[in-house]
Amino acid sequence: MTEMLSSSLPTVDARIYPKGGLDVLSRDEVARLRATSEGGMHDLLRRCALAVLTSGSASDDPRAAGELYPHFDIQVLQQDRGICIDLLNAPAMAFVDGEIIRGVAELLFAVVRDLAYTAIEMGEHSNYDLDTSSGITNSVFGLLRNARILHPADPNLVVCWGGHSIGRDEYVYTKQAGYELGLRGLDICTGCGPGAMKGPMKGATIAHAKQRRRTTRYIGVTEPGIIAAESPNPIVNHLVIMPDIEKRLEAFVRIGHGIIVFPGGVGTAEEILYLLGILLREENRDLPFPLILTGPTIAAPYFEQIDRFIRLTLGEAAAARYEIVIGDTTAVARKMAQGIKRVREYRIAQKDSFFFNWALDVPLEFQQPFLPTHEAMAALDLHHGRKPHELAADLRRAFSGIVAGNVKEDGMRRIEAHGPFEIHGAKDMMDALDELLRAFVVQRRMKITGEYRPCYRVLA
Amino acid sequence: MTEMLSSSLPTVDARIYPKGGLDVLSRDEVARLRATSEGGMHDLLRRCALAVLTSGSASDDPRAAGELYPHFDIQVLQQDRGICIDLLNAPAMAFVDGEIIRGVAELLFAVVRDLAYTAIEMGEHSNYDLDTSSGITNSVFGLLRNARILHPADPNLVVCWGGHSIGRDEYVYTKQAGYELGLRGLDICTGCGPGAMKGPMKGATIAHAKQRRRTTRYIGVTEPGIIAAESPNPIVNHLVIMPDIEKRLEAFVRIGHGIIVFPGGVGTAEEILYLLGILLREENRDLPFPLILTGPTIAAPYFEQIDRFIRLTLGEAAAARYEIVIGDTTAVARKMAQGIKRVREYRIAQKDSFFFNWALDVPLEFQQPFLPTHEAMAALDLHHGRKPHELAADLRRAFSGIVAGNVKEDGMRRIEAHGPFEIHGAKDMMDALDELLRAFVVQRRMKITGEYRPCYRVLA
Amino acid sequence: MTEMLSSSLPTVDARIYPKGGLDVLSRDEVARLRATSEGGMHDLLRRCALAVLTSGSASDDPRAAGELYPHFDIQVLQQDRGICIDLLNAPAMAFVDGEIIRGVAELLFAVVRDLAYTAIEMGEHSNYDLDTSSGITNSVFGLLRNARILHPADPNLVVCWGGHSIGRDEYVYTKQAGYELGLRGLDICTGCGPGAMKGPMKGATIAHAKQRRRTTRYIGVTEPGIIAAESPNPIVNHLVIMPDIEKRLEAFVRIGHGIIVFPGGVGTAEEILYLLGILLREENRDLPFPLILTGPTIAAPYFEQIDRFIRLTLGEAAAARYEIVIGDTTAVARKMAQGIKRVREYRIAQKDSFFFNWALDVPLEFQQPFLPTHEAMAALDLHHGRKPHELAADLRRAFSGIVAGNVKEDGMRRIEAHGPFEIHGAKDMMDALDELLRAFVVQRRMKITGEYRPCYRVLA
Amino acid sequence: MTEMLSSSLPTVDARIYPKGGLDVLSRDEVARLRATSEGGMHDLLRRCALAVLTSGSASDDPRAAGELYPHFDIQVLQQDRGICIDLLNAPAMAFVDGEIIRGVAELLFAVVRDLAYTAIEMGEHSNYDLDTSSGITNSVFGLLRNARILHPADPNLVVCWGGHSIGRDEYVYTKQAGYELGLRGLDICTGCGPGAMKGPMKGATIAHAKQRRRTTRYIGVTEPGIIAAESPNPIVNHLVIMPDIEKRLEAFVRIGHGIIVFPGGVGTAEEILYLLGILLREENRDLPFPLILTGPTIAAPYFEQIDRFIRLTLGEAAAARYEIVIGDTTAVARKMAQGIKRVREYRIAQKDSFFFNWALDVPLEFQQPFLPTHEAMAALDLHHGRKPHELAADLRRAFSGIVAGNVKEDGMRRIEAHGPFEIHGAKDMMDALDELLRAFVVQRRMKITGEYRPCYRVLA
Repeated sequence: MTEMLSSSLPTVDARIYPKGGLDVLSRDEVARLRATSEGGMHDLLRRCALAVLTSGSASDDPRAAGELYPHFDIQVLQQDRGICIDLLNAPAMAFVDGEIIRGVAELLFAVVRDLAYTAIEMGEHSNYDLDTSSGITNSVFGLLRNARILHPADPNLVVCWGGHSIGRDEYVYTKQAGYELGLRGLDICTGCGPGAMKGPMKGATIAHAKQRRRTTRYIGVTEPGIIAAESPNPIVNHLVIMPDIEKRLEAFVRIGHGIIVFPGGVGTAEEILYLLGILLREENRDLPFPLILTGPTIAAPYFEQIDRFIRLTLGEAAAARYEIVIGDTTAVARKMAQGIKRVREYRIAQKDSFFFNWALDVPLEFQQPFLPTHEAMAALDLHHGRKPHELAADLRRAFSGIVAGNVKEDGMRRIEAHGPFEIHGAKDMMDALDELLRAFVVQRRMKITGEYRPCYRVLA
Repeated sequence: MTEMLSSSLPTVDARIYPKGGLDVLSRDEVARLRATSEGGMHDLLRRCALAVLTSGSASDDPRAAGELYPHFDIQVLQQDRGICIDLLNAPAMAFVDGEIIRGVAELLFAVVRDLAYTAIEMGEHSNYDLDTSSGITNSVFGLLRNARILHPADPNLVVCWGGHSIGRDEYVYTKQAGYELGLRGLDICTGCGPGAMKGPMKGATIAHAKQRRRTTRYIGVTEPGIIAAESPNPIVNHLVIMPDIEKRLEAFVRIGHGIIVFPGGVGTAEEILYLLGILLREENRDLPFPLILTGPTIAAPYFEQIDRFIRLTLGEAAAARYEIVIGDTTAVARKMAQGIKRVREYRIAQKDSFFFNWALDVPLEFQQPFLPTHEAMAALDLHHGRKPHELAADLRRAFSGIVAGNVKEDGMRRIEAHGPFEIHGAKDMMDALDELLRAFVVQRRMKITGEYRPCYRVLA
Repeated sequence: MTEMLSSSLPTVDARIYPKGGLDVLSRDEVARLRATSEGGMHDLLRRCALAVLTSGSASDDPRAAGELYPHFDIQVLQQDRGICIDLLNAPAMAFVDGEIIRGVAELLFAVVRDLAYTAIEMGEHSNYDLDTSSGITNSVFGLLRNARILHPADPNLVVCWGGHSIGRDEYVYTKQAGYELGLRGLDICTGCGPGAMKGPMKGATIAHAKQRRRTTRYIGVTEPGIIAAESPNPIVNHLVIMPDIEKRLEAFVRIGHGIIVFPGGVGTAEEILYLLGILLREENRDLPFPLILTGPTIAAPYFEQIDRFIRLTLGEAAAARYEIVIGDTTAVARKMAQGIKRVREYRIAQKDSFFFNWALDVPLEFQQPFLPTHEAMAALDLHHGRKPHELAADLRRAFSGIVAGNVKEDGMRRIEAHGPFEIHGAKDMMDALDELLRAFVVQRRMKITGEYRPCYRVLA
Repeated sequence: MTEMLSSSLPTVDARIYPKGGLDVLSRDEVARLRATSEGGMHDLLRRCALAVLTSGSASDDPRAAGELYPHFDIQVLQQDRGICIDLLNAPAMAFVDGEIIRGVAELLFAVVRDLAYTAIEMGEHSNYDLDTSSGITNSVFGLLRNARILHPADPNLVVCWGGHSIGRDEYVYTKQAGYELGLRGLDICTGCGPGAMKGPMKGATIAHAKQRRRTTRYIGVTEPGIIAAESPNPIVNHLVIMPDIEKRLEAFVRIGHGIIVFPGGVGTAEEILYLLGILLREENRDLPFPLILTGPTIAAPYFEQIDRFIRLTLGEAAAARYEIVIGDTTAVARKMAQGIKRVREYRIAQKDSFFFNWALDVPLEFQQPFLPTHEAMAALDLHHGRKPHELAADLRRAFSGIVAGNVKEDGMRRIEAHGPFEIHGAKDMMDALDELLRAFVVQRRMKITGEYRPCYRVLA
């Protein structure tokens, strides 16, 4: 009956002519782009386009956009003068009196641009060597440059991480923080969904208006698996779709001049471990990288627990890499502005670029996906005495596996089939992990049906 | 003890150098501006400046800004290169890390600019003949031009009227309406306080961002008696301070290409009568002037009552001048866009300017203040059979007097001293007026302490 | 037969709608502007407009533009939306395929704007007190501001003086000097005719293009008696018509940050004396004001003679106020750039404006015209021992009178009627003056028919 | 002694940081760019850079720039933030007070950018298939896009061809034509040397200034063999260095919306035959392509002879492809503007791009160099009855060979060694060719030492 339901949602057919980047293509490029959009990539293109076209919709409807607009389709057509995009049964909400909203059209071109780049430049005959760390970094650079994200201005880009479904108080806090950042001339980059990814942009928009700042950047960095679930919020004015989660994470840490972590779910905890795993490497020891964990008073316990866990497992050196600020958005913005000033000085001294953090060492194991099989989980080594960055990497993986075992379809099926993961780890560390996870459940930051039952057992 | 209270509110001393308009002054002009700012006008300047410096503050604090910042002062200093402005004990909220917020500074320059213009150009040796209708209109034009409000672009300016303290539902509705207007490329002009004056600007800001519209106008038109009570909201990027309420109203109807009325208090009802009084004049009969009364479902009764009252008193011709739309912001925006298109065509056909509605006939009695004394109220003539525009003018005056008698200090004192006003009026008309007022009280749109008791009695 | 001749010159009728300044006028202003353009000022408007419309024409045709286009007329029409300008039988050379050249249209609007300003603001009911020095300076300021010449940027405006009919070598030299000034980011202001007034602008245009300088100013300052004879050259992008020669001179010295004098006729010598008369005043002693006299090698004798004359009459202090550079445009530009840097520092230290040299003392006698009657000439006092600036003023007047007596219709008639002027002067000074004048005749810088015969005799 | 001479020419050492395109490079790209600039390409880079740095120099010095600045060198240095360019013993004429002229710096970056692109993208591992016609066209497109020459604006680009050493009258005529084109909003593209390549740009600069046109394009298209001999004139603001003469010619016909041919030497005649060879192809029959041959009266014989020759050899259809206009630059500009209007309509109808003429069929034989050996010359077939476009191609080759045999070192040596070329051709055609060549000699458009002696003999 989806069809009947959907038929009540108004749709529009439209033909759109791209501007900016997609408008000066060679005949060959147009042909390849068209081929790409029709081949195996078509469904991906369709899903991402739909996400963008429903940007800003109220997200409380549990049915995916795909079900709401089952007849939606997108065609990339070839013309000598370039390409045009045909939209069929597209959500009417993306249009005003029959004309597509200009910002939505821009995000749509970004989708086509990035998927085409990924398919053509990083496909079979790629010039990038995707088996090496530097090859992957180069491909991340290439994608970001092609998306016109990189440009040589003074460092001012703050990456904001945090949950997409947070409480009202926490959301208002992210907005206020964005406002304080914006007052200080800082631009915002997030994962571009709702919640902690939308609040900072919204706050910064008002602040930038007050400061009469005309060239502003609200950068959304996403990937195909995420965008479909989390439509870019309407304020994003630069969107880039990275090919996978790892390249998305690398994009964040290469272009951000500092990172703020708001309260979030377990995913946010994973991101913190990812970043600490990198920052704790010997190679990155002297690199300034402002990292602030912050939230309103109500979020204090969340950060306390994470802080405790990190100190226990990775030690004081890890804790020295971040600062926790509770309930003071002005302090957050001031510290971030100061931190970025130091980043600027460092880059000048090192003759490093402002727009891409080449100097940050990101090893191959952080660039390749981790698939949490029983074998992979059993191979983890969670004991004291290891190098902190290696331990951080394994902790992140453990975390990722446990989350999968508890809430992701794939992981839950594996647990059903083979029993709980077996993890080799020190008792105090594993106890702390357990405590952390239980707290998340209590704080409703990890959604469990029924009672929480660990999906792993510890081997010493 | 105010002092102790205030001493806890952080303040800042600062020196500011104006840009844009105030930066190319002759030595004489600087001297006159300085003299003006020090003489009788100093207190006015101080109050208006303080209003601007507390722009965007939470308005739930009942104490006026003046009490919160008792030691605040402003000095306009002379320099050969122009002027500079010294702020003493200014609200810290207008500053970021010691630097004034650029938008606030712009509003501050607007205050100095407009008060100086009024004092110098419309004072004793004025070139304007303020005793004639056309002289007053010229002075309104002069002030608006000096404030750089007039510029020859396509008609797209929507004036939004409505209450400054409205319910949450109504506020959200004004925001949504502003959003829909903004999506259609329309700019917003309001009285620049909170409530219905802020919502449309906020909504338009987001819509303009989505449409990548870079040159936007959020015009605030205020006057000295109002600005101190209602700080301009932070989104206003053009502010003009007209010398009095009548010139402020004339500014609205001369620069607006259409007007939307949201729910408001009795003041809003008065504004509707003011506008109808003008539009019903024979001279303005053929002039297109889109006028839409709108609100969410909850506001339907408000508009129904007003509509009923207008039909009874001024007749169907008056009702034909506006359209009531309930609960449909898209329809509102579409109708307004179409109406403005007709305005554009008309102005082209008539070779009238886009930026100032010269063709609108505003007679002297609408340009001069009405002081509701017992004599003036007794002189009103509220009977059927009069020309609608004359009746509208008298109704507006009656309204104004009654409101004063009920809620304004001056008026209440007069009633206490001399007993109720005596008004000559037809019974049905006066009954309808009474009903309307009682409804406002019930809907809490007119705030009465104790029970409502009419402050007038009717003479046939 | 003029008519037949002119009928062969192609003409165009056109209606033009002004932009920029003339587009936001009140009804009253439009009416006054129209009245002005029809009244006594009409012929002046017609002549100035024609000068602008023949801008850039080959100037070797001895017949005035007025004779070439005898049927040309201009009407300023009133419309509610502003004004429009009707051109009848206008020179076709100002049009391209029926459309007026945009730069020519801008100059035309400047003509209307300035003549209207002068007529309205400086006429009978003027707000300016034109009997006082500061009143005149204020009116100069008002006119320049109204013409949008004043704007608060870094000092970079070089005024270039020199003859309008100079030799090829000298013209090429002025072009080269303009090129070197332009390379250093300096803008040019001249009297906007041909010769030394055109060369520097042309050179600067090429240099600005090479330096990718996009906002450039080629300011022409003229007056009604001059513009008709010397059409603004096509490069001028800001034109202002001052009401008379004295206000034109004051405009030059108030807005220029430095002055370069190229070879010229006797008029140029007069300008040098005007400027020295001001700079030698006690009040201006410490004011930095770069003044460079320069030309190619061929012009060396011209400057040597002037230098000798100044040293003899005004003394070494006067010579210290200028520098003579021969045949080195790079040195000229470098010295000027350095001089302007000092001007900038001085203005900052004195808090004086960048865009108008308020601090320069220009006394009333330099602001009022000098009419060379026999009485006025006899009142001059050219003896050693006077204050240099007073002597400079009298020398300039003597000069002006003698030139008039030799080449100007009025002056020659006076001499015929009353015999030679009688001038009271020291013998050595008068000999030097005689020598200087004879040299000008020899160098063909003063055009005399027949043999040169002094039009004055000296009384000790 | 070159060294001593050169040592008197002032030089400067400088380090320059590129902007625009070269500023966002990956580490790899910087490394490759550096490697390229040091390897076999270094000498080429050095020569081209020197040409740009001596841009605008008086060209009458017969010694090449290379001899005048023997110690000049250029190094591309690697920095993480991008590249920087070190100049050693660079011509001081490119600098102003130690700072490089911004326009010269831009041309310098263009040189590095294009040589690097050619070396990297069109070298060994090229993605372009340079053996096919479409592959070559793609590479031309890629180079032009990388040089930011292509951008989607309305068609307005006029390519001007003609000699680099033409008479004063002819030069002034090209300037006047550029002026008339510029007045009509047209941009200019030339081979960017002196003479007919500089005049139109200079004229257009003045016209664009008069029309207040701010975004202007003066595109220079050159190639390594030409740039060293003909420095880009100072007005060029977009420079692209194509890898060889054939790609340069293809660039002209793909980006130009119309072509004007001014008088020139034999090279110009060859270019006309090249273009006619393409336009006469069946595939290009319906393609609008405005082509105007024009010059002052003095140049009439030149074009008459060319016209006669074309009619005789290629027939009336060929002559129908161009129009000859003598002594009327206004007519030239008007016809060109009208022609480009038709091009615009055609492209819209065909959905072809505005910025690259994809629809023009340029076959492989026009894309590959012709080497005039005796064998190649003997293989030509210059008889009536062949398809005009084939005959045009062979005529162009014959022409090219004969010119080489007469004035180019290589060709003259071949003739000495093997005797005159033997060409198979119809008598009347060969007579006409001979007549044309003799006329060029007489008009001094082909410089021959001694008497002209044909370097070929005709076989029927």
